[in-house]
Amino acid sequence: MKLKEIKSDIAWATPKRVVIHGLDLCDEIVGKLDFGQMAFLQIFGRLPADDNELRMFNAMMVILVEHGITPSSLATRMTYCGAPEAVQAAVAAGLLGLGSVFVGSLDNAARLLQESLPGQEVGDDVDMNALAADIVAGYRSRKEILPGIGHPFHKPIDPRAPALFKVAQETGFDGPYIRLMVALGEQATQQAKRPLPVNVTGAMAAVASEMGISWKICRGLAVAARSVGLVGHILEEMRQPMAETLYLRIEHEASAHLRPADEA
Amino acid sequence: MKLKEIKSDIAWATPKRVVIHGLDLCDEIVGKLDFGQMAFLQIFGRLPADDNELRMFNAMMVILVEHGITPSSLATRMTYCGAPEAVQAAVAAGLLGLGSVFVGSLDNAARLLQESLPGQEVGDDVDMNALAADIVAGYRSRKEILPGIGHPFHKPIDPRAPALFKVAQETGFDGPYIRLMVALGEQATQQAKRPLPVNVTGAMAAVASEMGISWKICRGLAVAARSVGLVGHILEEMRQPMAETLYLRIEHEASAHLRPADEA
Amino acid sequence: MKLKEIKSDIAWATPKRVVIHGLDLCDEIVGKLDFGQMAFLQIFGRLPADDNELRMFNAMMVILVEHGITPSSLATRMTYCGAPEAVQAAVAAGLLGLGSVFVGSLDNAARLLQESLPGQEVGDDVDMNALAADIVAGYRSRKEILPGIGHPFHKPIDPRAPALFKVAQETGFDGPYIRLMVALGEQATQQAKRPLPVNVTGAMAAVASEMGISWKICRGLAVAARSVGLVGHILEEMRQPMAETLYLRIEHEASAHLRPADEA
Amino acid sequence: MKLKEIKSDIAWATPKRVVIHGLDLCDEIVGKLDFGQMAFLQIFGRLPADDNELRMFNAMMVILVEHGITPSSLATRMTYCGAPEAVQAAVAAGLLGLGSVFVGSLDNAARLLQESLPGQEVGDDVDMNALAADIVAGYRSRKEILPGIGHPFHKPIDPRAPALFKVAQETGFDGPYIRLMVALGEQATQQAKRPLPVNVTGAMAAVASEMGISWKICRGLAVAARSVGLVGHILEEMRQPMAETLYLRIEHEASAHLRPADEA
Repeated sequence: MKLKEIKSDIAWATPKRVVIHGLDLCDEIVGKLDFGQMAFLQIFGRLPADDNELRMFNAMMVILVEHGITPSSLATRMTYCGAPEAVQAAVAAGLLGLGSVFVGSLDNAARLLQESLPGQEVGDDVDMNALAADIVAGYRSRKEILPGIGHPFHKPIDPRAPALFKVAQETGFDGPYIRLMVALGEQATQQAKRPLPVNVTGAMAAVASEMGISWKICRGLAVAARSVGLVGHILEEMRQPMAETLYLRIEHEASAHLRPADEA
Repeated sequence: MKLKEIKSDIAWATPKRVVIHGLDLCDEIVGKLDFGQMAFLQIFGRLPADDNELRMFNAMMVILVEHGITPSSLATRMTYCGAPEAVQAAVAAGLLGLGSVFVGSLDNAARLLQESLPGQEVGDDVDMNALAADIVAGYRSRKEILPGIGHPFHKPIDPRAPALFKVAQETGFDGPYIRLMVALGEQATQQAKRPLPVNVTGAMAAVASEMGISWKICRGLAVAARSVGLVGHILEEMRQPMAETLYLRIEHEASAHLRPADEA
Repeated sequence: MKLKEIKSDIAWATPKRVVIHGLDLCDEIVGKLDFGQMAFLQIFGRLPADDNELRMFNAMMVILVEHGITPSSLATRMTYCGAPEAVQAAVAAGLLGLGSVFVGSLDNAARLLQESLPGQEVGDDVDMNALAADIVAGYRSRKEILPGIGHPFHKPIDPRAPALFKVAQETGFDGPYIRLMVALGEQATQQAKRPLPVNVTGAMAAVASEMGISWKICRGLAVAARSVGLVGHILEEMRQPMAETLYLRIEHEASAHLRPADEA
Repeated sequence: MKLKEIKSDIAWATPKRVVIHGLDLCDEIVGKLDFGQMAFLQIFGRLPADDNELRMFNAMMVILVEHGITPSSLATRMTYCGAPEAVQAAVAAGLLGLGSVFVGSLDNAARLLQESLPGQEVGDDVDMNALAADIVAGYRSRKEILPGIGHPFHKPIDPRAPALFKVAQETGFDGPYIRLMVALGEQATQQAKRPLPVNVTGAMAAVASEMGISWKICRGLAVAARSVGLVGHILEEMRQPMAETLYLRIEHEASAHLRPADEA
């Protein structure tokens, strides 16, 4: 069999040193870079160009860390309840549900933006309102859900979108993708005749696009950030557990209609 | 059935805001805190007391992010190869092997330190050399592996341990747990008559203990940091894949002895 | 908050008994049903109607158990190498890659069949060749991959498809979905002017459709069967490990171009 | 680097056939073996010697498939709720909690039995009561939990243990490991002065030991069987979902004490 070459450019090590994306772990990373810079290095293969780029990246990462009691944090707590010795499995279980329902709109919105405004020099001469009107009309005619728009709980507006866009303005990342995303919210609102502004995943998709992050890896950023949050839920589950109480309660309620009255 | 109460103190939300550990996500976190501070907040339930505490925490987190091609990053790449649409599953698969062999020594070393020096005011009047000599002798007599000591590849010393301890000195976190860990390395070296200095998990265990992090959650920090690293491997696998080549090669080699010569 | 009811009809228990889909676990299942019947019960909520139905189901399940060294079994072995104490995590890691690339064609083929021949009394008066020709032409014009057709390794024919169809004939499950699947292979071959017969996932999709299994859960059957196979790989990895050798080799090869010659 | 050889004896394939543990998949497995026989083949590397061996194995596998609403099935449902397109991830999430709390006692009990009665010809001349009394006394003096004994819900006896032992008697698998397990239950009851009979994991551990299954892989059997059960929960969650209702309820209750009265 002909052997195809394999290579990885991320890291290498010798007994005396470890080098990651060209930086010596011991001399140039530990004590020098913070966790946000390290995450940036790992995603972009380079350090942030300046404080603005780092601040924008950090804003996007922190917004994803913690969302309270969600299906994801409950899966983590249920898993920890059965396998407290395998903390890695509890984190992994919580990550596994970050799919099409909760985080998929991030990928989808980023893809929509990046495919609507492809190329290097995007957007300067584009009529965003016309483009957005077309896109919205297309989704409506196909009865598809427009990603990144509207929120069942945070309404009329999702406060996280303007918070992220404010940082984008302050750091110079308020470019064409954000303009298109905002226009999509406005056009959706107009065509549906009810408030459908940009939500948190729409805002993140726009910011990620401004930073040059491919839509294909947006979900990865969400997953990495959320894993930090899930560790917090494990810590709390250690101190004030809820998983056992919950499953006993749910089992009791869910099978009540099956259990004979005299055996309940 | 009597209903036991459940509660979580981490976060709450209303349509207009999200509050995490008492901080308003939109007003006090996004654009204000960086990813390291947010991870600190999630683990400790409070912001770092000062720059030193944050720097120490960041040093510990960045050292865990990336270790190159490992069983963990290979599991991620294999999973991505089969399910590229489920990036969360690829990250989770890579985390699942962070168990007793690679990260377990972190928990075990932290537990050893924390159980050897319990209580609030630890270590000031402890003879660390005597304590370490006792501990090492105990492990040797039970033929158990002393966690946090020695490294098969990074020898005679693991350069990451002194790098982390240097930051501990600079930030005032060089307390009794680090002294005990170093003493354990010295006593192990002396009793085994070969170089067995502190390795990276031993150093991290000591620093985590200095920061007041329970040994029970140390693995969680490793898992959260590594999930950032695994996203980097997914990104590279997207651009220059190796998983398919690898599995075809391995399949070919591993079953060569079974396959009839005329059907190979 | 208004409390919506929750209920599960699968099982219930009292201190004295466990009842699953209406059968008493101790009196009617253990020692009475075999693993195939139990899997059938769990999927259909009833026992097989006769030996033919059970035999068809078993044929579908056994074909999915073991596929040798695959990305899936390698992810399991890599995970076991790092966390041998968490066998559940090693199985889970191997399952996670059963996504769009390897098992997705099963769902897609089943969906295609079930949406092309909906309803109770399907296919009796349908011109399968005309229907298949239309479907194939549609996929070709949209440049989409027709699921369940062709195989990169098992060619010109995938021997597992006729094996499964033979059992379908013998058990009376050779109905319209199988006829349509075969017609799709013939039309694909004709229109592409190269051999594109039904592959194993296409055959399974057709059989599952004949048995009344929704395309939405087909992947679940593959996952359950493969988990049995992955336990076999863990057993072998215990006895004659390959994961450590593999990752050391791969690490060495993949980073060779980065490592300075004098530090290699 | 010296290349160590790797090999796998499980399966091999050529374009024309697939061979698993020496059997041709298409000619000797599909339509010939049922799911229980295939699982046996994958675990033992051979077919069952006779109907008794197969019946005993099937009894052990079916008892593990379904346990109703558990932390495990809830983790599966929560994950499906977020990622319905990744059924493999939902199954994996449910498996991840099969750790020390729920399934660990199976490994531990099997290990205890196998290490107490090592070797080929075990138990014939062993005084089981004396051995059991010693073991129980040892666990009590070390304040460790004796695995495989007692159950919080199924009391005074766990009905699944006698059900499994009955099959063992009928199939000739009632050997020394079962005798020791039963003796452990009796001695535990006597020494603790309260009913502590053998539970389901104790019974399974004894039967697995009789069948020659190493304690190291017992958890793997539980995991494979349960994955079948979890597919049943996904099917039900598709038809009558509970995950979303549950997480909204739990979120509401768990954060009620944090949410300001006027924002509830």
